[in-house]
Amino acid sequence: MNAREKLIASCERTKSQLCIGLDIDPKRVPKSCGEGVKGMFQFAMKIIAATADIAAAYKPNMAFFEALGPEGLSLLKHIIGRIPPEAVIILDAKRGDIGNTAEFYAKSVFDLFKADWTTVNPYMGYDSVKPFLERKDKGAFILCLTSNAGAQDFQWQEIDHVPLYLHVARKAAAWNKDDTCGLVVGATYPDQIGPIREAAGDMPLLIPGIGAQGGDLEKAIRFGTANFTKPAVINVSRGVLYASEGEDFDKAARNEAIRLNDIISRLKNTPA
Amino acid sequence: MNAREKLIASCERTKSQLCIGLDIDPKRVPKSCGEGVKGMFQFAMKIIAATADIAAAYKPNMAFFEALGPEGLSLLKHIIGRIPPEAVIILDAKRGDIGNTAEFYAKSVFDLFKADWTTVNPYMGYDSVKPFLERKDKGAFILCLTSNAGAQDFQWQEIDHVPLYLHVARKAAAWNKDDTCGLVVGATYPDQIGPIREAAGDMPLLIPGIGAQGGDLEKAIRFGTANFTKPAVINVSRGVLYASEGEDFDKAARNEAIRLNDIISRLKNTPA
Repeated sequence: MNAREKLIASCERTKSQLCIGLDIDPKRVPKSCGEGVKGMFQFAMKIIAATADIAAAYKPNMAFFEALGPEGLSLLKHIIGRIPPEAVIILDAKRGDIGNTAEFYAKSVFDLFKADWTTVNPYMGYDSVKPFLERKDKGAFILCLTSNAGAQDFQWQEIDHVPLYLHVARKAAAWNKDDTCGLVVGATYPDQIGPIREAAGDMPLLIPGIGAQGGDLEKAIRFGTANFTKPAVINVSRGVLYASEGEDFDKAARNEAIRLNDIISRLKNTPA
Repeated sequence: MNAREKLIASCERTKSQLCIGLDIDPKRVPKSCGEGVKGMFQFAMKIIAATADIAAAYKPNMAFFEALGPEGLSLLKHIIGRIPPEAVIILDAKRGDIGNTAEFYAKSVFDLFKADWTTVNPYMGYDSVKPFLERKDKGAFILCLTSNAGAQDFQWQEIDHVPLYLHVARKAAAWNKDDTCGLVVGATYPDQIGPIREAAGDMPLLIPGIGAQGGDLEKAIRFGTANFTKPAVINVSRGVLYASEGEDFDKAARNEAIRLNDIISRLKNTPA
């Protein structure tokens, strides 16, 4: 089973297209979890325990762990080690460097941290993403149209009347020889997801921007999955992790995940 | 003294425009240095000792350390801690993420690892680089035209008859309100450096691609510094680190650094 098949199987198993982003900000960890790195670990364990049956994937973001130095990377390894093996692990790193250096990053995310998927930045072109795409049992979501305001600075710029993000989608489709490639497409630009899905063929999409960023869940899932015929996961980070600041944070996280999954299920059972 | 002034001062102090890239591949560390992480540390110490008076900057690349996990980040901290404080430290990380996440990356490179400068990827636009540029005592080299073959996939694409890399240079110049911004421009595309320098104004350039990548040192330095009137450093990694595979590796590294500096000095004393 390659990473694409694992993603599809995990969505079927959990009847969910939800990815929970583990963006653990030490300042927002409830006091009951404890202090420092131990508190972050406890918090992650409780979030995972509360959502394991309804999250197709978990997406830790490297930045939050790297900012804590060596201890942070140990924490990340421990958290990933406790995610159920059937759940998909997307290590959000947005790496991109020249070929021989990118190989070291690929080793890091796939071999050291045991991620199924990672995220990569396309700006440096094919040789910077090749070491990730060549790993036949793994996958790389290439940043295409990101969910932030800054996406407009370059991604929206038109080359021969086609925006850069669509060029990226088309190149990625051409690079995707081993079914190891996916695309990151923000829910904050819902009307752009349709054309990207068309260029992407059967590639999985990772769709962030729901919740704190205000993206459009319904359009994102309709266009992103081409009405539930193609693989896609919707990521939510802060909206689930910090659904409550109280002691009931894990219950609140579960409820928010269920609420989002219910919206998606209703769409699935309603003709477009 | 901000990071830009430190860079200029360090070039003057060393009479050099050389940046030595600390891309330490454990497989290429000479046996005499010892095994594993300790061997890498010894290797770095000997390279730094052999070049401290002739290197304006050192540029460790995060990938090589991250691939070793927590131990690798400890190693990086220890190596940076032993670089003479007057030398510029450029932590090559090529990070880029949405604003609140980018802040964690900025903390990592500047506060935890104590870098003066880092490298950032522009694909996600202004809010992804802002947390780096806002640090008035620090600096960020934005990837503009990178030295690898893949640069042609997107960076060379034309928007309104202007290649994307030149749009990046112009945006960066507009974002550079606090003199905290620089650009990465590969020596492998020497004829493109002139127009980038023009767009960049007084921003420092970080120019990789000399040595293993086959870039053009003479054009790079002429165009990159606008005939020694603007700040720029030339990076060389493998060409210096692995100048010899024998026990004399540190002497060979020094000789190679001196050889490159001599070429630059001769150019300085020869009218364009």
